Amino acid sequence: MDTTGNNANLEKFFNPSSVVVIGASNAAFNLGATICKTLKEDIAFSGDVFAVNRGGEDVHGAPGFKSVGDIGRPVDLAVILAPAAVVPGFVRDCGENGIRNIVIESSGFSEQGTDGRRLQAEIAEAARRHSMRIIGPNCLGILDNRNRFCCLYGANQLVQKTVQKPGTVSYVIQSGGVGGLVVERLMEDLPGVNKMVCIGNKSDVDESDFIDYFTTDNTEVIGLYLENVQRGNKLMAASLRCPKPILVYKSGVSEAGSAAALSHTAGMANNDAVFEGACRQAGLIRLRSPEELHALPKMFIDMPLLSGKRIAVFTNSGAFGSIGADLLAETPLAMARFTSRTRESLSRLPGVFNAGNPVDIGPALPEVYLQIYDILLSDPGVDGLLHVVGMWRDYVADVMSELVELCRRHRKPAALFCFNSMARVRTARAEKNLPLFNTLEEAVRALVVSHQQFHYLQKKEKKRGRAH
Amino acid sequence: MDTTGNNANLEKFFNPSSVVVIGASNAAFNLGATICKTLKEDIAFSGDVFAVNRGGEDVHGAPGFKSVGDIGRPVDLAVILAPAAVVPGFVRDCGENGIRNIVIESSGFSEQGTDGRRLQAEIAEAARRHSMRIIGPNCLGILDNRNRFCCLYGANQLVQKTVQKPGTVSYVIQSGGVGGLVVERLMEDLPGVNKMVCIGNKSDVDESDFIDYFTTDNTEVIGLYLENVQRGNKLMAASLRCPKPILVYKSGVSEAGSAAALSHTAGMANNDAVFEGACRQAGLIRLRSPEELHALPKMFIDMPLLSGKRIAVFTNSGAFGSIGADLLAETPLAMARFTSRTRESLSRLPGVFNAGNPVDIGPALPEVYLQIYDILLSDPGVDGLLHVVGMWRDYVADVMSELVELCRRHRKPAALFCFNSMARVRTARAEKNLPLFNTLEEAVRALVVSHQQFHYLQKKEKKRGRAH
Repeated sequence: MDTTGNNANLEKFFNPSSVVVIGASNAAFNLGATICKTLKEDIAFSGDVFAVNRGGEDVHGAPGFKSVGDIGRPVDLAVILAPAAVVPGFVRDCGENGIRNIVIESSGFSEQGTDGRRLQAEIAEAARRHSMRIIGPNCLGILDNRNRFCCLYGANQLVQKTVQKPGTVSYVIQSGGVGGLVVERLMEDLPGVNKMVCIGNKSDVDESDFIDYFTTDNTEVIGLYLENVQRGNKLMAASLRCPKPILVYKSGVSEAGSAAALSHTAGMANNDAVFEGACRQAGLIRLRSPEELHALPKMFIDMPLLSGKRIAVFTNSGAFGSIGADLLAETPLAMARFTSRTRESLSRLPGVFNAGNPVDIGPALPEVYLQIYDILLSDPGVDGLLHVVGMWRDYVADVMSELVELCRRHRKPAALFCFNSMARVRTARAEKNLPLFNTLEEAVRALVVSHQQFHYLQKKEKKRGRAH
Repeated sequence: MDTTGNNANLEKFFNPSSVVVIGASNAAFNLGATICKTLKEDIAFSGDVFAVNRGGEDVHGAPGFKSVGDIGRPVDLAVILAPAAVVPGFVRDCGENGIRNIVIESSGFSEQGTDGRRLQAEIAEAARRHSMRIIGPNCLGILDNRNRFCCLYGANQLVQKTVQKPGTVSYVIQSGGVGGLVVERLMEDLPGVNKMVCIGNKSDVDESDFIDYFTTDNTEVIGLYLENVQRGNKLMAASLRCPKPILVYKSGVSEAGSAAALSHTAGMANNDAVFEGACRQAGLIRLRSPEELHALPKMFIDMPLLSGKRIAVFTNSGAFGSIGADLLAETPLAMARFTSRTRESLSRLPGVFNAGNPVDIGPALPEVYLQIYDILLSDPGVDGLLHVVGMWRDYVADVMSELVELCRRHRKPAALFCFNSMARVRTARAEKNLPLFNTLEEAVRALVVSHQQFHYLQKKEKKRGRAH
């Protein structure tokens, strides 16, 4: 497979130097117009933007033409938002005028029965003839926060804000609604979105193509929301090629859920046991809820992977120490048993109530926090830390910053949760870049998926060793 | 059991006309002083506040005395925050001076070994001799948002805000940290806190006494956080007497968790299977995480209980319809099968993509939303609604307000979740009192616990019928 060539083909979806929005006009409620507005007014996209509509009228400052052929300049990318019946004609127009990348956002294709399937086949045929790459149909479009490019329709307010905070998590999402949720929640969280692409009916380009693409770009973590998998072997092969963590939430698992997914993005239901097996084999980290798509990536940014199962719980609330231990007991992870040296060192420190695991402290000075971190991370029987603290003083945020540094030095991760002072937590996240989880359950889950990724990479390494 | 008399005894914990804080002084980091400050400066408590300390000095405007006997006026409630060793003496002082309600917030009792257990026994003895009721020791204190009374230590900023928003959920919490989490999160949510009491080592008054108390006061929902249950039969009897929903999260389930709980609030671990059985029999709704303590109560306020298992999912996002169906499939609830009349009525409406369950609509006018609600709630095969919408227009909040009304009329509940526009969601909650859940999982769980409560009350009703 020519991965490089394939990726070069996809690059223009995220970083086009010129775009035409076909179907954008000044009519009321026109969706294409919202894209022209985003590009020309909201985010100051650096490339050219054109509009194609019956009257050839300008839209939000984008010069208007009656057809693609009239533009008279090379165009990198076409975004089509027109009634399904006229879309195949526009696709052919694009092909004949040298446009090789097309996003079809209109619905009314294979998700809507026989006529729609016929139209979708016409599009695929035109794409083959002109060697075009197509995203969609029936999708929301593309967002690239770093390149400041976006062709999501109707998302103006959201896009204006999210481009201010480019991150390193990239998403392939088979639904506009889930995409919106993820982008919005990450604006209040640590990592931020790098790129997001909504793939809809995926008549041509699919999740696997983008996994390959995100394997080689500046992405650190990949998130997938899938309703169906049409080419399972291709997905497994792409995942096996990718060393970055890939988090996946799949819907359509139950009978009713898969029926709903069918009418949404036209995919057949997949056998869930088969999908589960494929995930295990190819190292895809399967998520339990769509919320985990935005909650968990921060565990993979600036934190070492969890190389073993033995967790030290550290708290300044006896209750949360107990709850943390309970939640860990429901996972494959385990409570660490401290060496006698660790216990002795801990019990010599002022303010330590419990020198066992969970370690429980009362009011203590910042130095005591730092000494405890060092003692725990130095214990050879401790693989990682569950850090459950109340921000009773501002300096708790400072010591957590130092903890993140210590974690890197010891190559052991910590999952951070604060059970109070939500305002301080938000500030700490924003100002100190702290990977703070919203709930204790999320922090525990983050340790689990971190170890899952470590275990998968290790297995792959061993296999490679055997192959040589 | 004299429930009335018992409750009368407890009333002064929440609504005292005078309070003395024993151990409050002007020394640096004095915890008792934070309580004087709360009462005198932060929340303008309407009763008298006194301080007892060695120098007899005034604290934050609370007149100071060298001993309780010097106050010279009747006092309803004493709050003690002094070293454990001197606490028994203060308790006897209180008894001899006619104080009948005492909150002991100091730690250093049975949670800390033999000496502590002896001190706690001394306190219990003094309490019996003078017929005093004691909360604690080793606890955070009491909050009553409606009476504007609070003796939580060190919680000034939090208390200032929470008294602005008195609600109808009352909590019994065996940990200050969990109490803080719940109070703080409910300030951004619908119902708000009515009363909260942190019971610590519960040497005298325990969770069962407060269940009885909250059964008869203005509380609508009761939340419990427990680390141990010392008197299981008493808890079951109190729960069986209470028709209000009682939500309980118990920690100390795992071996490590119960060891941690032991050093925190001194209770022996309980066999979890026994506790689970007791919950089932006595109708306690067991929670899966401490977060559910604040997330789920809103389902019981202004919403009818879910009388059956058949749920209609309504969405304007195909993806979330599918995810909602998947999440429901993991619960005891089921997807409703619509009557042909329902399907026909739905498919006649403009903008309806899918007239089956989940019902999926595109851009639609408010009237269409209202018609769909009425059609779904009128279907005899539908017991409740999972409402998963994107707030693509402001009027979505308005139609949800009307939905809450319709739910009451049809006596069927709806669990509301919006997957985008967090800012609009917060506004809708604050301005329109909408019970919006933070995640789809929470909304699904809310339907589950609503049905659990219905089922329990029905079972109890049947038993009563047979008994007569």
